[in-house]
Amino acid sequence: MSHPFECKYGYFSDDGREYCITTPFTPRPWGNIISNGDYSLMISQNGSGYSWRGNAGQNRITRSFQDLIKDNWGKYLYIRDRKSGAFWSATFKPVMHPYEDFLVVHSIGYSRFIQVIEGIRSELTVFIAPDAPVELMQLTLTNLGEDTRELDVTSYAEWALGFAPDEHREFHKLFIDTSTDFTLNAVFARKYLWGFPDEHGRYNNINWPYTAFMAVSEPLVSFDCDKESFLGMYRSEEHPAAMDAQHLSGRVGRFHDAIAALQVAVSLAPQQSKTVVFTLGAAEDEKEDAAALIRRFTSVEASRQTLQAVHDFWSRFVDGEHVETPDPALNFMTNYWLKYQAISCRLWGKSAFYQVSAGYGYRDQLQDSQIFLVGDPSFARKQLLMHAAQQFIEGDVLHWWFSIRGGGPRTNCSDDLLWLPFILDAYLKETADYAILDEAVPYLNAPAEPLYDHCKRAIERAFSRFSPRGIPLMGDHDWNDGLNAVGTLLKGESFWVAEFLYVILGNFIPLARRRGDECFARRCEDVRVSLKDALNRFGWDGEWYLQATTDAGLPLGSHENDEGRIFLMPNIWAIISGMAEGERTRKVVDSITRYLLKDYGTLLNYPAFTKPRPDVGYVTRYAPGLRENGGVYTHAATWSVWAYTLAGEPERAYEAYHKICPPNRSADIDTYKAEPYVTPGNVDGPQSEYYGRGGWTWYTGSAQWLHRVATHWILGIRPQEEGLLVDPSIPAEWDGFTVRRRFRSAEYEIHVRNPEHVHRGVKSLVVDGKPLESNLIPVFADGQKHVVEVVLGRKE
Amino acid sequence: MSHPFECKYGYFSDDGREYCITTPFTPRPWGNIISNGDYSLMISQNGSGYSWRGNAGQNRITRSFQDLIKDNWGKYLYIRDRKSGAFWSATFKPVMHPYEDFLVVHSIGYSRFIQVIEGIRSELTVFIAPDAPVELMQLTLTNLGEDTRELDVTSYAEWALGFAPDEHREFHKLFIDTSTDFTLNAVFARKYLWGFPDEHGRYNNINWPYTAFMAVSEPLVSFDCDKESFLGMYRSEEHPAAMDAQHLSGRVGRFHDAIAALQVAVSLAPQQSKTVVFTLGAAEDEKEDAAALIRRFTSVEASRQTLQAVHDFWSRFVDGEHVETPDPALNFMTNYWLKYQAISCRLWGKSAFYQVSAGYGYRDQLQDSQIFLVGDPSFARKQLLMHAAQQFIEGDVLHWWFSIRGGGPRTNCSDDLLWLPFILDAYLKETADYAILDEAVPYLNAPAEPLYDHCKRAIERAFSRFSPRGIPLMGDHDWNDGLNAVGTLLKGESFWVAEFLYVILGNFIPLARRRGDECFARRCEDVRVSLKDALNRFGWDGEWYLQATTDAGLPLGSHENDEGRIFLMPNIWAIISGMAEGERTRKVVDSITRYLLKDYGTLLNYPAFTKPRPDVGYVTRYAPGLRENGGVYTHAATWSVWAYTLAGEPERAYEAYHKICPPNRSADIDTYKAEPYVTPGNVDGPQSEYYGRGGWTWYTGSAQWLHRVATHWILGIRPQEEGLLVDPSIPAEWDGFTVRRRFRSAEYEIHVRNPEHVHRGVKSLVVDGKPLESNLIPVFADGQKHVVEVVLGRKE
Repeated sequence: MSHPFECKYGYFSDDGREYCITTPFTPRPWGNIISNGDYSLMISQNGSGYSWRGNAGQNRITRSFQDLIKDNWGKYLYIRDRKSGAFWSATFKPVMHPYEDFLVVHSIGYSRFIQVIEGIRSELTVFIAPDAPVELMQLTLTNLGEDTRELDVTSYAEWALGFAPDEHREFHKLFIDTSTDFTLNAVFARKYLWGFPDEHGRYNNINWPYTAFMAVSEPLVSFDCDKESFLGMYRSEEHPAAMDAQHLSGRVGRFHDAIAALQVAVSLAPQQSKTVVFTLGAAEDEKEDAAALIRRFTSVEASRQTLQAVHDFWSRFVDGEHVETPDPALNFMTNYWLKYQAISCRLWGKSAFYQVSAGYGYRDQLQDSQIFLVGDPSFARKQLLMHAAQQFIEGDVLHWWFSIRGGGPRTNCSDDLLWLPFILDAYLKETADYAILDEAVPYLNAPAEPLYDHCKRAIERAFSRFSPRGIPLMGDHDWNDGLNAVGTLLKGESFWVAEFLYVILGNFIPLARRRGDECFARRCEDVRVSLKDALNRFGWDGEWYLQATTDAGLPLGSHENDEGRIFLMPNIWAIISGMAEGERTRKVVDSITRYLLKDYGTLLNYPAFTKPRPDVGYVTRYAPGLRENGGVYTHAATWSVWAYTLAGEPERAYEAYHKICPPNRSADIDTYKAEPYVTPGNVDGPQSEYYGRGGWTWYTGSAQWLHRVATHWILGIRPQEEGLLVDPSIPAEWDGFTVRRRFRSAEYEIHVRNPEHVHRGVKSLVVDGKPLESNLIPVFADGQKHVVEVVLGRKE
Repeated sequence: MSHPFECKYGYFSDDGREYCITTPFTPRPWGNIISNGDYSLMISQNGSGYSWRGNAGQNRITRSFQDLIKDNWGKYLYIRDRKSGAFWSATFKPVMHPYEDFLVVHSIGYSRFIQVIEGIRSELTVFIAPDAPVELMQLTLTNLGEDTRELDVTSYAEWALGFAPDEHREFHKLFIDTSTDFTLNAVFARKYLWGFPDEHGRYNNINWPYTAFMAVSEPLVSFDCDKESFLGMYRSEEHPAAMDAQHLSGRVGRFHDAIAALQVAVSLAPQQSKTVVFTLGAAEDEKEDAAALIRRFTSVEASRQTLQAVHDFWSRFVDGEHVETPDPALNFMTNYWLKYQAISCRLWGKSAFYQVSAGYGYRDQLQDSQIFLVGDPSFARKQLLMHAAQQFIEGDVLHWWFSIRGGGPRTNCSDDLLWLPFILDAYLKETADYAILDEAVPYLNAPAEPLYDHCKRAIERAFSRFSPRGIPLMGDHDWNDGLNAVGTLLKGESFWVAEFLYVILGNFIPLARRRGDECFARRCEDVRVSLKDALNRFGWDGEWYLQATTDAGLPLGSHENDEGRIFLMPNIWAIISGMAEGERTRKVVDSITRYLLKDYGTLLNYPAFTKPRPDVGYVTRYAPGLRENGGVYTHAATWSVWAYTLAGEPERAYEAYHKICPPNRSADIDTYKAEPYVTPGNVDGPQSEYYGRGGWTWYTGSAQWLHRVATHWILGIRPQEEGLLVDPSIPAEWDGFTVRRRFRSAEYEIHVRNPEHVHRGVKSLVVDGKPLESNLIPVFADGQKHVVEVVLGRKE
């Protein structure tokens, strides 16, 4: 099979799960974020890799992008020919030795580095045990030549244990203690200081509660725990002193800049192969035993079994749903990479090359958790309850919080609290698990109440922050964090929040009635009426809707503005919410298409701000065309796909989707620069010098939403309370598509044919051989597989 | 003249001001901290250099030591032969080109890099304008060969503007905007985001209020403001892409990782020399004009004048006092380097290679300010009033504070507040400026009161924190920050605070009487009596004094302890305070000598803690022998010199001094590792694997105190209210010494002879030819020079 997405730097493998990179010289660090939930790894195609356990915000990595590539707290394997003295690394970095062959594969739960150098083929596979805080580096060396080769393999990792080590490493490194155990072929590191207070609030008075280790499956020849003796003064990982020495120095203790370096010997007859396994991990002292983890994982057999377990583990999350459409980019991304990105990076790793997270964002991981809905909705349920517990009895929430010790900012953000009922609706539509409404969850400052009350208090809090014209206040900001000066004095309004709240109320009213809360249901109905009226009266600018008014009463996103004349969010959500009607819908859609739908996706606003506006906020401080300032902010751009389908413009919807679906940038990769297998946070807009450049990949809420708009709004397979709706909005040239997915404990295999080449409209629908009148597939909940045959076309 | 302090890495120059390093391969980055108070520069002998302006805590540099050497946000000059393509750097780093000659000179206010490479002699002198936020790099190139050479010189600096840029560089770098001006031969950088809130408390809503620039004295040939185009992807400063290109790329704007790189052409006939001057600075937008600064400083003539101004500037601080003794190490350090270290690094730069400061430490810079007392006491006065303003009306203080926006931690530290009256006493003894007591200074939370009341409130606050046995409570910790779990529950006691307070009360009682505050004077007298009684009753351990009792009532620094049996501080201060008497003085001194006075200075405690003790604090978490845990903590070790002189052990005093006076480690430099021209924060004790290793140089309060114990307690020239006391405690083999110093607006030239080779005791004292009965030289305050002839010996 030919590869539909080749570019000069690589291609997707046949199964669409692996992305294969054929050169170390990509224009940005194309990487992989591998996580098992507790332990995470960030690794680039050059081999620069970090690992950390627990919440990334607590074990923070604060190195920047160029530094990551040039120099880092990395982990490397050196391969050396003991006769010739030649040495190289199992990844391109750090030695950067010329290679005869080079291939890096990033995939679902592992990365693989294949090189041929000096007649030795090396294949390094890096992954994390699904059920333990252990990273495995499985290295297979093959002698391609005619002579026996005497090699050694030397691992190297810098310890960065605990809290924010970069902030004062000269101090923190003094507390790391290293030791070795030849019976385990391992070195250990502990740290006698942690960035958290003890029970009396005293800082610097407790141990880091883990024992870190590195171990190897072969007999240990020598080791080192001292960076200085390993690297040598004034030297670097590229050519460490250790590669000039017979053996490693064997230094341990508490007096060094601590590293882990293990050296083993590998002798290879011609054509012989040998596999060596290195493990790296951190055992929690009160729960886990480092020696037991080492014994369990540090062997070739264990490594192979664990890699199989990795495949099984990820299958649970990615294989519960599968689509086949004529669009290979949509297939690849929807079936594998978007799910993987959302789960491994956003929900678990919470760090990426451009950004580390300080914990869970209230809005962020709630939205991301929708990715679990098909594969395993219990994870979404857990996330909903976790976020509900970060709410105050007053209804507002921590804007983000640390996941180890808790704590975070309580702000006047106007939308964060509302995402709880919004995502709850998606969860209920998928699962009909109304029992979740009764789950008692504590507030941060009050005893537990049912989840229903959490949502109601969030809505009531939103009700308490309205302008006298009936528009929600902007507060510290809305979804767009960069509007952080528009409404801090609690006068400026957010028209987008009006629309978002309108949607939420629409969903919540039936829930209130279901619980007999008729009084609140009526209140919500009244507010909906009022919101729609106020939006259309005060938020309409003539050709589109306003974004906001400032504390000074100035409009934002208006034809009256020279810069920031039109914003995407209030316009797409006017459609999503159904608040725009008739002629206005058409005008709004036309304005979006005309001003915002550009070559590389839908812009967040236009024209960009060229000068800082202190009455608007930091969005105006970015360069024009960058990120939220006139760039394609991918998170919002996915919603434009949704809006176009609702507005009855399926071709535009598909166009807006196609432009931001990463593999479609493969032919254009030197402009795009980013990995074509995960979404970027943003793409530079037309006012940027780098129009079309992708930025801040991996850690972005767009991954889950790009998945969702494809499955729910383009393919149109949407869970409803009573069943699974089939309502595609597809390109007319498609002959059809197939969706296989779980829904309420049954398996649905949905074949959609499009013989008339329409965009939309279900002509007939047959379930298990029985024709249905509607396009709503019933709930079976029988654990069985059901085959659905759908034909699109004009009804006679 | 031979150099008394040569070591394999370098030597002091003849005048003792310059330290000359003959190899880039010292075992640690031997550097210089150059500051003019507002603008500071940290530079190593390898040429890795940072510069920043304002308070280092606000423009934080958080890179670690090994990273500093390997890779940094540095500033470099590249020299290239345009014919051959050969290139190197004007400092060893980053290119590390083989050299024919190499010399680096660190001195008072400048560093100089001399190399001969490829037939070109380069001499780079780096310094800061004394009165402007401008750094100058004066580069002189000389063609040593027989052929004309066509060279170019290219500067490179990474912009790191504003607040803590390392924490999230991927975000912060987006807001840096660069531009160029060929008429000024300059590039500019501004940043549209600063880490401080605006007037409404909104973060990320104001500009960084400076314009940074780099300019050059020759016509600009080309420039670049983009790190990626300059370095090239996956490359480094060692061999940037720019050195393979004809000219720099000319990229500017807000879309890059911002740098400043300027390229100029230099053509040199055989034996011809040419000087090029680069300037780097940051103009405060509302006060300064970047273009005016560029024009003022960016020329060869201006550079030469400014370097002379640097010499004049520093002369004010270092030449007001001069000693000549038979000990060249004492002379060098006392006359130049200790003053320079305390002022340039501790008081102004507030950052060094191992540690950045977050601002002013309440105790730290108060003590350091004593360094100004001889040269210009008005600076000490300013510092006293500045610290008084960081006090609360309740008497306690901010333990440290930021100097740009203020703010810092309010703690239960038991000694910080007391340093105000302690240092005030030293100021008054030097100046008799009693008017300072009337200076009205505001509290952080209350209106202004006279400085006298600030001191009184500090003392009264200390009075409020006593144990029922009459010993001050330890609180969060005392001078030893690492005792941070001993007394947080406000039960544990600090015997050292008892002694410190006793000294302060002794000094304060006459001040209270002078102001008619008899009631408080009596109260202080009563407390002194009680303190002395309580210390000797409850603090005596049999052979030495206890350090503390813990909240649980356990003794610390007792023969009952297995680890931490004896602490230095309570024992030397028992002598300094005069609270130990008779037999106990002897026992204490013998215990100090026996257990603590080791090869490389006086240990802070012994034996070191080998296991963390959560009831003691982080001092027990260091490796044994390291820093406060059984190491020589230099700050306290200087006080042991003082105590030995008071205890009548001048030989021990000199021994304790000699062991920690840095040039004396020159012969031992591969063990010591640190610069021999500034004090280290600590030297590893006997339980360390690296016994004798110096650590954390430059940023240490020991510099000022090592100066003071030499001048006041070894040479024994001590200001008193009524005059200048002459009371030496010197090695008997000395023939004498000379001290020239200012005192109360007169110049004193004191010649001390020691014909009988005694340790102490003034036999005769003649002032301006007139014999005096006492050893107290009178106050003249006449602007004149007075010659004092002192003869030591036994009185007949």
